[in-house]
Amino acid sequence: MLKVLKFGGTSVGTLERIQNVANIIKDIRDEGHDVIAVVSAMSGETNKLIEYAESFSKTPVPNEIDMLLSSGERVTSALLSIALNEQGYKTTSMSGREAGIVTDNAHTRARIESIDTNNMKNAIADGKIIVVAGFQGVTEDTQRVSTLGRGGSDLTAVAIAGAIHADVCEIYTDVDGIYTTDPRIEPKAKKLDKISYDEMLELASLGAKVLQNRSVEMAKKLNVNLVSRSSFTPEVEGTLITKEENIMEKPVVSGIALDKNQVRVGMYGVTDRPGMAAGIFTSLANANINVDMIVQTVAVDGKTSLDFTIPTTDWEICKTVMNTFKDDIEKVDYNEKICKVSIVGVGMKSHTGVASKAFSALASENINIRIISTSEIKVSMIIEEKYAELAVRALHEAYNLDK
Amino acid sequence: MLKVLKFGGTSVGTLERIQNVANIIKDIRDEGHDVIAVVSAMSGETNKLIEYAESFSKTPVPNEIDMLLSSGERVTSALLSIALNEQGYKTTSMSGREAGIVTDNAHTRARIESIDTNNMKNAIADGKIIVVAGFQGVTEDTQRVSTLGRGGSDLTAVAIAGAIHADVCEIYTDVDGIYTTDPRIEPKAKKLDKISYDEMLELASLGAKVLQNRSVEMAKKLNVNLVSRSSFTPEVEGTLITKEENIMEKPVVSGIALDKNQVRVGMYGVTDRPGMAAGIFTSLANANINVDMIVQTVAVDGKTSLDFTIPTTDWEICKTVMNTFKDDIEKVDYNEKICKVSIVGVGMKSHTGVASKAFSALASENINIRIISTSEIKVSMIIEEKYAELAVRALHEAYNLDK
Repeated sequence: MLKVLKFGGTSVGTLERIQNVANIIKDIRDEGHDVIAVVSAMSGETNKLIEYAESFSKTPVPNEIDMLLSSGERVTSALLSIALNEQGYKTTSMSGREAGIVTDNAHTRARIESIDTNNMKNAIADGKIIVVAGFQGVTEDTQRVSTLGRGGSDLTAVAIAGAIHADVCEIYTDVDGIYTTDPRIEPKAKKLDKISYDEMLELASLGAKVLQNRSVEMAKKLNVNLVSRSSFTPEVEGTLITKEENIMEKPVVSGIALDKNQVRVGMYGVTDRPGMAAGIFTSLANANINVDMIVQTVAVDGKTSLDFTIPTTDWEICKTVMNTFKDDIEKVDYNEKICKVSIVGVGMKSHTGVASKAFSALASENINIRIISTSEIKVSMIIEEKYAELAVRALHEAYNLDK
Repeated sequence: MLKVLKFGGTSVGTLERIQNVANIIKDIRDEGHDVIAVVSAMSGETNKLIEYAESFSKTPVPNEIDMLLSSGERVTSALLSIALNEQGYKTTSMSGREAGIVTDNAHTRARIESIDTNNMKNAIADGKIIVVAGFQGVTEDTQRVSTLGRGGSDLTAVAIAGAIHADVCEIYTDVDGIYTTDPRIEPKAKKLDKISYDEMLELASLGAKVLQNRSVEMAKKLNVNLVSRSSFTPEVEGTLITKEENIMEKPVVSGIALDKNQVRVGMYGVTDRPGMAAGIFTSLANANINVDMIVQTVAVDGKTSLDFTIPTTDWEICKTVMNTFKDDIEKVDYNEKICKVSIVGVGMKSHTGVASKAFSALASENINIRIISTSEIKVSMIIEEKYAELAVRALHEAYNLDK
């Protein structure tokens, strides 16, 4: 098999941990697999370099930031290559440029445009383990080093796996897979063997932090089998994120997600005329505010009410936008003491009564549901924040996720 | 004027010092000059990375060492570019690759083979200050990053200055120029305004540590006007190292050098047959031992004596080589309590009696000379180490260098 393995900043955070990663790769290589490892900078390095840059400028030039930050991954890739070479393996580090990764010109948040896999294919044909400096590429027209922004090393790994038709892309972090819910909240949470891309996307956007949506989306698009596993317990199998067709037994509910970083915005006495709501939400979208759940109540006396939720980080900007509508809205209030619990599962598509079981479970704990929104594979509910953990445990039990 | 400026590890050792370097460049730019700055890694960074590598392997793969170490200069070049940009200047960092520097394949000690100056010329035409990551290039055939070894950033600066026909190449260190002798030994030492390449080469090889011979040799070959000056006192003019023809008034003696890292090797009762001495010195050369001064005494009874000096660092290897000749040498002894004082000056070529003045000066201080060697522009003398400083001061005064 050809395996792409990605090791994040925590997994390569110290020299001892880099040695540990070398041992993981060694074991996989000894099983007869070809290996392309993608590495992040040692944890702390990137932040240190950003601090350096910001000591000179509040708005450092993006292409220089990329020159600066890309050095961190280069260091890790060289060190890991040296460690593997010392154990008798043929290895080569590769910068993003050497790995053939071409991006657009959006420095510090570049998008991968293409990957020329020739260099990597030749190295593999030579029997080499490749260690790619993640998070970076080179711009097509200026040929300058570029970086991919948050989660860039995961993206590098997935994009390479897709381009070179790897059998699997394993993302190593400090967590050994995807759980039915956060084990710190529900100790009975179980690690999932498999989960579909769509479920993973919902879980990630709902607060599960193991994998970022950008990489899961790319894995889905490129049809890459993704595995989430831990470099600290490499003997544990991890969770396979794959396409729905590959999952034989589709659970009705795969997981419970909790997101406490939500604010409910209530708008009362909104002028009820055509285009009013559209105008408000267009303004919010233009301000890059991620509006999530929306409820509109029926108009009374030419006035209506609108409720929606936003991430806590968008709160301040939201207030500014709301202000521009003060002639058309009688009152706006905000409630940050809420949270969103969600149930996610591809089986919902073909089962009825899934949502009502959730409502009953919460009702039996006397938890009031303030807003509900559903998609094909998800039901999200806004409740009071103080009930967050209780709700997660109640739902976990209701869907027998500990079995 | 087009100026190439090189700033070493100490000059960019902290964020404050990088800001200081930005200010120096700013002042030069404001005078209307085009600037290419070449920078080293922040002091300590390279050693830290080497330690990291050696924690994995006693003999880390050279091309990975280059991938690793080259990151240090990239960081400095990006930071300096950010600092200059913040002050309103158009800037761009450049890796060795971007600066067009192509080397041979001798990773960790590569030689520059060619420089394609197009990228730099375009940037200058765009009105940009260029900040080149020193010490590195890219190999011609594998296109991998390579490093130039000790003094590599100086070499980068000189080679660029030669290739792009810069008017001057200024090497900034923590010393403000070349002195008639080490001011810590002779406080009356004077900074030289000008010195020829050959004198500089002799002084450097005799222990003056400001500039390395590799860069001075390249400057001589490419006819680059080199200036040694300090980034800590940029208002001080520094010393111009240039070709002899550019120096109108040629002093008989320009400087006094002292080298304490010498061992005298005495071989007694050496079989006096043809090729004997040649065999010994060929073996020493094959072991990369830098044999300096050699004296052979006349043969008596088919036996001869040979005295020579080597750098202290070569002492152990020298012993091994000597052992292989034990059948032909009766006795070998070593004396490390010696030193070499030298007088250097292009004026010696056309003056007589220069050396005898040195011998008299030492004799009047009762200092015995053990070995003497001379070249066109240099007289070196081996004396007992305890007289080192006294000898330097005596010679400094004898040639009126404090005037």
